[in-house]
Amino acid sequence: MKSTGLVTDFYQISMTYALFRLGRHKNQVVFDRFYRQNPFGGGYTVVAGLSHLTEFVNNFRYDEEDIAYLRSLGIFSEEFLSYLAGFRFHGDIYAVPEGTVVFPGELLLRFHGTTAEAMLMETGLSMIMNHESLIATKARRIRTVVGSDALMEFGLRRAQGQSAGLWGARSAMIGGFNGTSNVEAGQRFHIPVLGTMAHSWVMSFDHEIDAFREYVKCYHENLILLADTYNVLEIGVPDAITVFHELKAQGKLPKVYGIRIDSGDLAYLSKEAKRMFTEAGLPDAIISGSNDLDEYLIQSLKHQGATITSWGVGTKCITADGSSALGGVFKMSARWEDGKVQPVMKISEDVHKITNPGIKEVYRFYRKDNGKMITDLVCLQGEEIREDRDVVFVTEAAPWRKKHLRAGSFTVRPLLKPLIQKGKAVKLPEISEIIDYANQEMATLWPEYTRLVNPDIMEVNLSCRLQELKKEIIARELADKHHLT
Amino acid sequence: MKSTGLVTDFYQISMTYALFRLGRHKNQVVFDRFYRQNPFGGGYTVVAGLSHLTEFVNNFRYDEEDIAYLRSLGIFSEEFLSYLAGFRFHGDIYAVPEGTVVFPGELLLRFHGTTAEAMLMETGLSMIMNHESLIATKARRIRTVVGSDALMEFGLRRAQGQSAGLWGARSAMIGGFNGTSNVEAGQRFHIPVLGTMAHSWVMSFDHEIDAFREYVKCYHENLILLADTYNVLEIGVPDAITVFHELKAQGKLPKVYGIRIDSGDLAYLSKEAKRMFTEAGLPDAIISGSNDLDEYLIQSLKHQGATITSWGVGTKCITADGSSALGGVFKMSARWEDGKVQPVMKISEDVHKITNPGIKEVYRFYRKDNGKMITDLVCLQGEEIREDRDVVFVTEAAPWRKKHLRAGSFTVRPLLKPLIQKGKAVKLPEISEIIDYANQEMATLWPEYTRLVNPDIMEVNLSCRLQELKKEIIARELADKHHLT
Repeated sequence: MKSTGLVTDFYQISMTYALFRLGRHKNQVVFDRFYRQNPFGGGYTVVAGLSHLTEFVNNFRYDEEDIAYLRSLGIFSEEFLSYLAGFRFHGDIYAVPEGTVVFPGELLLRFHGTTAEAMLMETGLSMIMNHESLIATKARRIRTVVGSDALMEFGLRRAQGQSAGLWGARSAMIGGFNGTSNVEAGQRFHIPVLGTMAHSWVMSFDHEIDAFREYVKCYHENLILLADTYNVLEIGVPDAITVFHELKAQGKLPKVYGIRIDSGDLAYLSKEAKRMFTEAGLPDAIISGSNDLDEYLIQSLKHQGATITSWGVGTKCITADGSSALGGVFKMSARWEDGKVQPVMKISEDVHKITNPGIKEVYRFYRKDNGKMITDLVCLQGEEIREDRDVVFVTEAAPWRKKHLRAGSFTVRPLLKPLIQKGKAVKLPEISEIIDYANQEMATLWPEYTRLVNPDIMEVNLSCRLQELKKEIIARELADKHHLT
Repeated sequence: MKSTGLVTDFYQISMTYALFRLGRHKNQVVFDRFYRQNPFGGGYTVVAGLSHLTEFVNNFRYDEEDIAYLRSLGIFSEEFLSYLAGFRFHGDIYAVPEGTVVFPGELLLRFHGTTAEAMLMETGLSMIMNHESLIATKARRIRTVVGSDALMEFGLRRAQGQSAGLWGARSAMIGGFNGTSNVEAGQRFHIPVLGTMAHSWVMSFDHEIDAFREYVKCYHENLILLADTYNVLEIGVPDAITVFHELKAQGKLPKVYGIRIDSGDLAYLSKEAKRMFTEAGLPDAIISGSNDLDEYLIQSLKHQGATITSWGVGTKCITADGSSALGGVFKMSARWEDGKVQPVMKISEDVHKITNPGIKEVYRFYRKDNGKMITDLVCLQGEEIREDRDVVFVTEAAPWRKKHLRAGSFTVRPLLKPLIQKGKAVKLPEISEIIDYANQEMATLWPEYTRLVNPDIMEVNLSCRLQELKKEIIARELADKHHLT
């Protein structure tokens, strides 16, 4: 695999070089990755990208041609280039597993390494997790409106590049899709690839019905005929009915057969088509729909009684239409000084940009009676969270506002798991396990959080000890005139 | 390089297999690529993607592992898998060069090959050109508002995947950017990579001024200090002034020095910072701005007197915020029957989806007096277009509406150039030549077409002979009851 060391912003290398010259590049630090706002105005984000991230880390090195390129810039010393030539990540990464539903402000990933490792790898690491979590989230929004209908990812031709199509297809599966048209994704990730015909097939014949007849001679299963090349209700559906009757007469009508409509008014056309199939004795014919669909249009089509039970979603899922990026950030939370760990935080004029200091964990609480999610807690590593003790959450911005959980009424689990240990990737679950886990996760979320528009917003709590630590650091920094006035 | 044969939609392979079984996969066809609507509600699109496209075509084959994967699906015959194993593109592609400004409805690419070649390669070809033209167009919109300011691409961490970051950076250069932070893009495309420091540099020191002092010890040019880690006007600018005064006293102040502001109100902060630098005897200090910028915000900041002359644009350019995809399509326009070429077209109920038949060329007309673009003409191959004869354009939807160009008042040039001939890529211009050409192209466009909102829309003309051909085919098809009623 190609080295990924240059998949970074130039300033990461220029800063690392400056630290290298100061002999500070090997200082140990901890960085947190989190995001501040859910995409699409939604109530949650679905984590994806860890499999790709381990690939990225495994290939994070500087090959000869990378070093030659950096040398050609005329900026870096030979000592530094040698250092990069031998660079490998030896640190630890903890992450919330793929498929987990997460909320703004909580850690999704904790990075332990040298300053150089954190700087050089930040950009690629952020890019991968921002992108794939964004697509998984968009896909999950679409899944929430289609119920148990079939849902296919068709977006490769409009994806923002090959890797967007490839990893986007995988992310869509984590978000609840059933398959993809992307053959490379099928090969790489062992996910179902599907598809039957395009307009170019129908246009390869003089008459639509010839195209249908030839298709069913070649294929005997999953006979979804594209019915809108000329006119859905006057030509497409009658031609499909003729062909399905012919197959039925020969005892060859498969379980999965029907049409796809890729243009026109999908509500009207699907209802009429369903009626025509039913009157023709083919009530099981599947009506599949595509054409610039997203969660809003599908919800509206369903509201209007569309009979579509199989959806092909392309552009708007694979490009995350509506929120083109997830604003995940990567901020230092601790550093080692003289062998001792020091919590650090960014104190900003903009209170939303103040970060949480120290090495932290995230715990998720569920109701014991119905398994539904209650809330999440971010706390310092080492704080004891027990199911047999009462828990009190104190709102940071309004300390008089408290939430009590009675011992025995809840279950709790930590969200961060080891992903990379001393530079070596931990074995990850299979994609089928991730998909099952993702579906289970969503089932624990109250539907109020999944509404497309104006959903309920989950509050993430900070432990009292973490809140104390923040106050201490702010007070200390405020006293230091060199920093803040 | 990895094979790209599986970078396609599954139906392309399933249709090709069905044609293969009918012995029709080697029929010669012509496909046109065009788009129907400008992205971002704008007045134009900038073509990009041809360099990537030739790479894609050169690597379009099925390696052993690709064949093994397709075999594992249990659908295709061994004969077909052998055919794929030997598959190479042997056809011709003509395309409008990268950097050309184009308009809805005109051909951007003409594909001559077998039906199998057209089907198998369509998805990847469309993906590459849709994506890269989209980013080049977004970038050009941003360039039109920054004038001659410096403009940097900073989007990798929010890009939709590695290839989106890589090829997006190249596309941004075609759209008028001056450089990128993406080091891989610098290596691959020989484009300038730039960047100085992030907040993580400043936070690696106890005090901001130490971070600045250490930075200028290491670097002696392009000293753009990030001034907003704590407080721009109370700490960042004063610290920067101190450091620049120190350098000045040592005679070491370089030509390019200044600050970057990455948060807060960029209009207010930049004006105040500029005043402070000027009062401190540093009137040449550059104020650089970043933080979720796009063409609308930059235009508004400039309108409010922001003193920023160097812009870093990340997320919103690299993800094409506002129009997440370009809806380019690929439609058959001719096929060979019994050795003779037959023009074909899609006749749709939706008049906007009716395509133009036949093998076509595109010509662009310019005013001889000032070099500005007049209009474009799509015509059939072989039609003679001469500068020494009057030209009359007839509006297809309103034939009484005509536009006359007097002989001698205009110059004209064909837009389509050979890209691939008999499967071999033609030598493409260097990126620096493409950038020069792109800038010249934009200069020929009247500013009315470049307005961000509600621009003038260029009309693309169809030649009278092409209009006649469409009418003939529609009349013939309408007479055929099997097609339309």
